[in-house]
Amino acid sequence: MVSFESDYTTGAHPEILKRLAETNLECLSGYGQDRYCQSAREKIRACCGLAEADVEFLAGGTQTNAVVISTVLADYEGVLAARTAHVSSHEAGAIEYTGHEVLELPQENGKLRPEDLEAYLAAFFDDENHEHMTFPGMVYLSHPTEYGTLYTKAELTAISSLCRRYGIPLFMDGARLGYGLMSRETDLTLGDIAELCDVFTVGGTKVGALCGEAVVFTKGNKPPHFMTSVKRRGALLAKGRLLGIQFDTLFTDGLYFRISRRAIDMAEELKAVFLRRGVPFYLASPTNQQFVILENSRMERLREQVAFSFWERYDNDHTVVRFAASWSTTEEDLAALDRALQA
Amino acid sequence: MVSFESDYTTGAHPEILKRLAETNLECLSGYGQDRYCQSAREKIRACCGLAEADVEFLAGGTQTNAVVISTVLADYEGVLAARTAHVSSHEAGAIEYTGHEVLELPQENGKLRPEDLEAYLAAFFDDENHEHMTFPGMVYLSHPTEYGTLYTKAELTAISSLCRRYGIPLFMDGARLGYGLMSRETDLTLGDIAELCDVFTVGGTKVGALCGEAVVFTKGNKPPHFMTSVKRRGALLAKGRLLGIQFDTLFTDGLYFRISRRAIDMAEELKAVFLRRGVPFYLASPTNQQFVILENSRMERLREQVAFSFWERYDNDHTVVRFAASWSTTEEDLAALDRALQA
Amino acid sequence: MVSFESDYTTGAHPEILKRLAETNLECLSGYGQDRYCQSAREKIRACCGLAEADVEFLAGGTQTNAVVISTVLADYEGVLAARTAHVSSHEAGAIEYTGHEVLELPQENGKLRPEDLEAYLAAFFDDENHEHMTFPGMVYLSHPTEYGTLYTKAELTAISSLCRRYGIPLFMDGARLGYGLMSRETDLTLGDIAELCDVFTVGGTKVGALCGEAVVFTKGNKPPHFMTSVKRRGALLAKGRLLGIQFDTLFTDGLYFRISRRAIDMAEELKAVFLRRGVPFYLASPTNQQFVILENSRMERLREQVAFSFWERYDNDHTVVRFAASWSTTEEDLAALDRALQA
Amino acid sequence: MVSFESDYTTGAHPEILKRLAETNLECLSGYGQDRYCQSAREKIRACCGLAEADVEFLAGGTQTNAVVISTVLADYEGVLAARTAHVSSHEAGAIEYTGHEVLELPQENGKLRPEDLEAYLAAFFDDENHEHMTFPGMVYLSHPTEYGTLYTKAELTAISSLCRRYGIPLFMDGARLGYGLMSRETDLTLGDIAELCDVFTVGGTKVGALCGEAVVFTKGNKPPHFMTSVKRRGALLAKGRLLGIQFDTLFTDGLYFRISRRAIDMAEELKAVFLRRGVPFYLASPTNQQFVILENSRMERLREQVAFSFWERYDNDHTVVRFAASWSTTEEDLAALDRALQA
Repeated sequence: MVSFESDYTTGAHPEILKRLAETNLECLSGYGQDRYCQSAREKIRACCGLAEADVEFLAGGTQTNAVVISTVLADYEGVLAARTAHVSSHEAGAIEYTGHEVLELPQENGKLRPEDLEAYLAAFFDDENHEHMTFPGMVYLSHPTEYGTLYTKAELTAISSLCRRYGIPLFMDGARLGYGLMSRETDLTLGDIAELCDVFTVGGTKVGALCGEAVVFTKGNKPPHFMTSVKRRGALLAKGRLLGIQFDTLFTDGLYFRISRRAIDMAEELKAVFLRRGVPFYLASPTNQQFVILENSRMERLREQVAFSFWERYDNDHTVVRFAASWSTTEEDLAALDRALQA
Repeated sequence: MVSFESDYTTGAHPEILKRLAETNLECLSGYGQDRYCQSAREKIRACCGLAEADVEFLAGGTQTNAVVISTVLADYEGVLAARTAHVSSHEAGAIEYTGHEVLELPQENGKLRPEDLEAYLAAFFDDENHEHMTFPGMVYLSHPTEYGTLYTKAELTAISSLCRRYGIPLFMDGARLGYGLMSRETDLTLGDIAELCDVFTVGGTKVGALCGEAVVFTKGNKPPHFMTSVKRRGALLAKGRLLGIQFDTLFTDGLYFRISRRAIDMAEELKAVFLRRGVPFYLASPTNQQFVILENSRMERLREQVAFSFWERYDNDHTVVRFAASWSTTEEDLAALDRALQA
Repeated sequence: MVSFESDYTTGAHPEILKRLAETNLECLSGYGQDRYCQSAREKIRACCGLAEADVEFLAGGTQTNAVVISTVLADYEGVLAARTAHVSSHEAGAIEYTGHEVLELPQENGKLRPEDLEAYLAAFFDDENHEHMTFPGMVYLSHPTEYGTLYTKAELTAISSLCRRYGIPLFMDGARLGYGLMSRETDLTLGDIAELCDVFTVGGTKVGALCGEAVVFTKGNKPPHFMTSVKRRGALLAKGRLLGIQFDTLFTDGLYFRISRRAIDMAEELKAVFLRRGVPFYLASPTNQQFVILENSRMERLREQVAFSFWERYDNDHTVVRFAASWSTTEEDLAALDRALQA
Repeated sequence: MVSFESDYTTGAHPEILKRLAETNLECLSGYGQDRYCQSAREKIRACCGLAEADVEFLAGGTQTNAVVISTVLADYEGVLAARTAHVSSHEAGAIEYTGHEVLELPQENGKLRPEDLEAYLAAFFDDENHEHMTFPGMVYLSHPTEYGTLYTKAELTAISSLCRRYGIPLFMDGARLGYGLMSRETDLTLGDIAELCDVFTVGGTKVGALCGEAVVFTKGNKPPHFMTSVKRRGALLAKGRLLGIQFDTLFTDGLYFRISRRAIDMAEELKAVFLRRGVPFYLASPTNQQFVILENSRMERLREQVAFSFWERYDNDHTVVRFAASWSTTEEDLAALDRALQA
């Protein structure tokens, strides 16, 4: 069955498997100290234009959010995030597991609005009882968001400025960062992100790796003894090479960007199919995830031929569903979807 | 200066101090095993009409919420609460500190509406991805709420039925329970609460005690080895007598209810003062806390003569403030407020 | 029945109850901001000879240990303590509940030996894999120890020097500090302790208060937003006056030291009774707790007339039990014990 | 440089890489629900002789210990382990991070002795104050231990019986289980382990996988909603196939056992080299890790040619070091070591 279920239903980009095989018998020390991790760090730093950034590798996305947030926050602080943010709603309480609160803010198309953030921060410090409340200690953004939408450079700049005014670090969850960077509608570069954020991630799992997220601390702000903190959260891989080799490959010859662009191209064709077949969009997404509204009985019929993801109930008769494109999406997949929708 | 700052600005009801002095030289074992704790348990059980309820004593309100919620929830569960609930906003993340999420729901006048709860639960179990989300494992209500409002018997019955249908325990935070029970506008008795809730608290700190909250597990559902769990949360008082003697006194000859009624009577007079002096109410509260809207410059002038609490900004020129009555509020206090408002 | 069960079986020193009653109707703000808390802070600072120390009040001993340790430690750190330390063995895992490890060291008569500490620290930093281990981030001592023993000035100086060499804060749990200071065999003053420790506590619960421990941060090292951290651990009392008035009373006219000396005097008479009646000591304690070895059948008979505490099994036929003296121990209590032992 | 640094310095067994490549383009659902995970579960169940066991896959060893221990323990419980156990000393406090205590017991050659366990349990429940202590809620064993040693069937049976008598689950950490099963000196089969333990792991990372540990709950005792608990600990891999395919391969045609046997054979030759070259053993290990004592200057010279691991200081002039054999150890590696030792 053809699948648009997610961008992590196939294995790894073949180049990654090739490199894993080529390096397989090399004896390498564990825990991220090997030469491939070092090389990957260098390449990511170069891509970001940050010669001094600290780059660390972790296995999964929820894990990465929990590790970054809980090692950066002070005891009395929580993280601000949109109500629809991954950390707010789809990580089964992983942030709370670390003892910290997710302070939820309103959202618009999955994005945190600078004015809502400003209003929250002003009200917090204005409140005479704020010592009885969780302090805002970090701002979390996902880019692309959970709805595939993107921050503009103006929006990210506004949020970053607010964060600096209040002395609060800005964290961008880039689990699908490549798709944001390669979108045809973005004006944000990796360099902009590196400059405007205090810490951000470069997602591998959803961009062609078997697993792996790179964390970039941009301002010399890596928490002390970070490796020990990672270990005690159960997040330190013995064979760190598995992450290092993958990221080294992704950042060689622009593979990360080629993978991402391919998915964007497929997503544009996907949009064209929906337009052609009269399937309404839930919102306009310029990245690899497309959210459409299906009448429930049509959804059930379509499911017999095509895999996609339930997103949320729209009304009693309709459902919002997600179709995701990836590096491994093919023209045949699109044609099959087109036929299925036509039926 | 006359004070309506809160219901915990004076010490204890004199009867409590008298009993502490009378029993002071008795040798009693620690940790809640003494005869006064036992007697207080019996009296509270009798008041609730629950011969088998487990009653335990803790020192503070936030502590009690954290202990109860974290010992009742399973690992993968969070607690549902109104956005304005004490556990959501004014406990500095105490619930999250225990590793559990507060799942915030909309509110109306500080109350959780049965229909919002039902919609949330239906959507959660309907969501095909709910295994990636925090499970709702408890419903938290405060009664009176943080805005002094009260659930009706019909509302509490609706919420309780929903909880039972979904197998989710219902927890009522009764930090100010006495004021709810003695309100002139309530139709809920202590017996109703004992029947409809799985666990509830009888607040002492804000109802005439130096400190102390009684926790009532109504259905044989006290968590196993509760004392050990209390201890490891740092919440076990060595001299448990301090809590036992206070609650034994509060539940002797109806003192808890007399204290509460006195505060309600004073609150009704307080309302009359505001009405007379043209101070608008933020909402209608039938209990001892009254929320009014003051023009900012009037607020600043009033502050020189009367103590009250900042609640929240109303608009650029007005502020919502709280006045609380208690057992120790006097006619003179009310007269002084009246004069100050007249000025 | 006469009781030597512990030093917290009676209520509070009468002077404390008197002051609670005298101040009962004063309107005071909550959460430790009232004038009695301020006055108590001043008096404790003066006693310690530390004009700049930060003094905070908490309700219970285990709570205080958990709050202090978890707010001072960094994420990747644990606390070093003797195997018999209260935090290691008798707090039901309260330190681990905060996410931190207690790193257990050998003990001698309940005391941590400087040489064992030095060996541990040297080996830790010598170990090439120490990034995979919990970092030692604090040294915990109790003084008096759980066995009533005391550090000498030379021992405390040696431990303090080691801590400074390694940059590790030294924390003294003074739940029974008064008995240490008033012992006839100590050469350590409160000033010495204030100078040699980074944080220490002055216990109230076991020295005549209803509840309460004072925490003294001696080097401008109070954790930031400490009140918020206390609140989120459920440890912030609304009526902070309850702690402030008690400590203000204890540190007025030397009451804390008079209470302690009285207990020491009674403990010396207790020792004389055991000597006279041929009851062997488990170890030599110069403070208010005395540990003796009783043959099991004698222990059971004695229990019918005198209350004391089980400590640990000595061998199949003998048990180590504890007798504690306090401010409320009387000559009659001692005479009754003497008669019971004679029988 | 030839390396005996650990059993995780090379990549994966080539058969695993081959299977990853072969299945790479298959569309598979995430989070462990794919057909390879299902197949691997079946094969592991068959190997254990437990048709009903629940088998789950996690990425790393410390992660697995933390997830298993924290989901099985009740709130008031800790885990019993030898002082040298991985969870006690080399996981940077990962168990404490989950809020639970590791209750350390004495060890002999890395093993927990049944008599020490029995003495602990008897004393705990005998102690009249045990409600103030962490309850023993699980027994943790590593097999092979951190020193390469093995439990005999008689020892494991004795420990298992004790656990059942006290109603405490027995957990075996099998990070290197294959080497235990293929040791020439063991009398314990996988079936024995499955019968005697309540939960155990089958380590992949150190036995030829890129990453991955299989957890086997043997008695229908998998914690409820385990996937959600795994997710909130940041331990749920999106591409669960990475674990499923590896374990499916390892348990096809006995690969897991062939890999393990090969390492055991190499370890036996390693022992012969040490014997021949007069290098004394620190203790007798029948598995793939060998611990020897090197004079410090010899150690430094040897390090220039051969990689191995520092273990612990033996005395001022000697160090205990570890040499590990694995599936990728070659005869050439052994010959090179032999030459280096001869020099």
